[in-house]
Amino acid sequence: MAAALPSAYAAKNKTKFVPGKDLTLIGKVMPTPDRYARVDTVKYDGFTDYQRRSLNQESSGLALVFKTNSDRVEVNFDYKKRHHAYNGTDVASAGADLYIKRDGKWVYAGSGVPSAKGEPVALVSAMAPGEKECLLYMPLRSIIDEVYVGISPDATITPMENPFKHKIVFWGSSFTHGVSANRSGMAYPLQLQRATGLDIRSLGVSGNSKLQQSYARVLADSDADAFVFDAFSNPQAPEIRENFNDFVKTIRAKHPVTPIIFQQTIYRGSRNFNTDNDQKEAAKMAAAEEMVRKAMETDPNIYIVYPAADTDGSTCTDKTHPSDMGYYNWMESIRQPILDILAKYNMK
Amino acid sequence: MAAALPSAYAAKNKTKFVPGKDLTLIGKVMPTPDRYARVDTVKYDGFTDYQRRSLNQESSGLALVFKTNSDRVEVNFDYKKRHHAYNGTDVASAGADLYIKRDGKWVYAGSGVPSAKGEPVALVSAMAPGEKECLLYMPLRSIIDEVYVGISPDATITPMENPFKHKIVFWGSSFTHGVSANRSGMAYPLQLQRATGLDIRSLGVSGNSKLQQSYARVLADSDADAFVFDAFSNPQAPEIRENFNDFVKTIRAKHPVTPIIFQQTIYRGSRNFNTDNDQKEAAKMAAAEEMVRKAMETDPNIYIVYPAADTDGSTCTDKTHPSDMGYYNWMESIRQPILDILAKYNMK
Repeated sequence: MAAALPSAYAAKNKTKFVPGKDLTLIGKVMPTPDRYARVDTVKYDGFTDYQRRSLNQESSGLALVFKTNSDRVEVNFDYKKRHHAYNGTDVASAGADLYIKRDGKWVYAGSGVPSAKGEPVALVSAMAPGEKECLLYMPLRSIIDEVYVGISPDATITPMENPFKHKIVFWGSSFTHGVSANRSGMAYPLQLQRATGLDIRSLGVSGNSKLQQSYARVLADSDADAFVFDAFSNPQAPEIRENFNDFVKTIRAKHPVTPIIFQQTIYRGSRNFNTDNDQKEAAKMAAAEEMVRKAMETDPNIYIVYPAADTDGSTCTDKTHPSDMGYYNWMESIRQPILDILAKYNMK
Repeated sequence: MAAALPSAYAAKNKTKFVPGKDLTLIGKVMPTPDRYARVDTVKYDGFTDYQRRSLNQESSGLALVFKTNSDRVEVNFDYKKRHHAYNGTDVASAGADLYIKRDGKWVYAGSGVPSAKGEPVALVSAMAPGEKECLLYMPLRSIIDEVYVGISPDATITPMENPFKHKIVFWGSSFTHGVSANRSGMAYPLQLQRATGLDIRSLGVSGNSKLQQSYARVLADSDADAFVFDAFSNPQAPEIRENFNDFVKTIRAKHPVTPIIFQQTIYRGSRNFNTDNDQKEAAKMAAAEEMVRKAMETDPNIYIVYPAADTDGSTCTDKTHPSDMGYYNWMESIRQPILDILAKYNMK
């Protein structure tokens, strides 16, 4: 599906569409041949076909930043794959999420998903005059060829400098990916980005963060100032024990003193009554605690933090994934602990 | 689509399915010919075809209560219409949401949606032995012919007495309906039901709560002990001024002294930057405040409360509808004010 440019819709609504390639893209762990992919999976080995062709290509966590004096912002996507999830909204899976800076804060401005027929969606309209700084998150789970940002025909739109600082590379499970968040910008790393101003590059790989060497090699090659890992949500306890040390070793080969902040996995709703899950999750947590604490004895730049996304399962969408409420709780619970650690490295 | 009983799936998994008609159904404003519909729209006039054939038939807010000693609970639905929304999850639109009583509290046990091919879904499994009291919410937006609850073949399942007391009839917009909640049980009236033990019968009619006489006649015929209305989210300011007094009059004809608690409408995310929406919403709020305060001068059993679902738009899914976080904030903000009002009428 190609978003015609200018389309009949654009003509009717007198909207001017500008391709994302003319704007600033942030949130990437590394450069990739496809602009809205996250990992160059031709360069790295060890990935499964699914990881290579699909998961690593999803645009979760990427965002455009630009300035415009338009009275409205519309958006359309050329999808390579338009994702629908049973446990998430289409707004999050295939849509855009827009924030505008006001009084130093990133304030929600609008969200939406282009129609299944390929028509653009208005994220915000009827805005007061003046130039705005915009932060536009890409879809959570879809694969994108190009994004088109629509503005009024007489307005200007210009690329903006990355407003965030200190390259903090997140890696993790569907939780870090943001699965079941209502909007693409509500994954907890992105909430943290807006709340702290940190330049977060988030590589959430739903169901596939198992401390593998493939991802360790990618992360090692990034120019991260710090790492934050949700590394214990996908592997079972034996995998954690088996893979943890080699995972750290591969990263340490290229980042000998970069802080690595491990996050304990979160409490899942399924634990409330499913005794099997409760035991498995407890075993994972114990293995994680054991492995990280042991590594901390010899490596002063390894840390552990404890997200409190959900203490009683009430935020679960599908027995596993938090709603926005869970991701908000997660972000709030790790915010100060992470800022305290980064401050030791003069990242303020 | 008929859920075969027993199905090949059931045989393979050794699951016994029991139809909802053998269990207790709660949450209904009134009896209806179709068990999982909410309004008898043959009996009442003034409804549009959409309201009659679709909206009023959706199972939002209805729930089954039962006791079982099964180690698992599965569910399947015979859908008359399986709903999908761009701004909600399929788990909420077409799925089930299960709570089990533990230490006097309704604790989340599991949620899920039967497969599109009609296979049942396991909401919880591997439970510890013992009889459980279960509260199973029906889908938020689908229309249901029958629900089948699956248990282990040697287990018992029995209808339970309605565990909630004082008939509190809610009526309102898509917000009361629960649109964009991640699970069907996360609409704010249902969160309030579990948190307070009130017997809430919630008639949320997405986009269609405009203080019409049709709905006033339905509400007047209910045997409510109290009313709580989200009546100012759908109509514009002129409609509020035009319809409000007649709406109250129709209800008062059959409920002369029943408390009626009006809720101010909530802050919407679209107000942050859309100046048109901001003005329209402010006008609605002013009209609502004016009309309710005037009615309160002569009617001592009319009240107004102020939900704080979202003060900065951060919980918005689609510029309008809160996520679970917004609905939780809403519930918490009206909980004590409503309990204080009900206490005056000895509803404790």
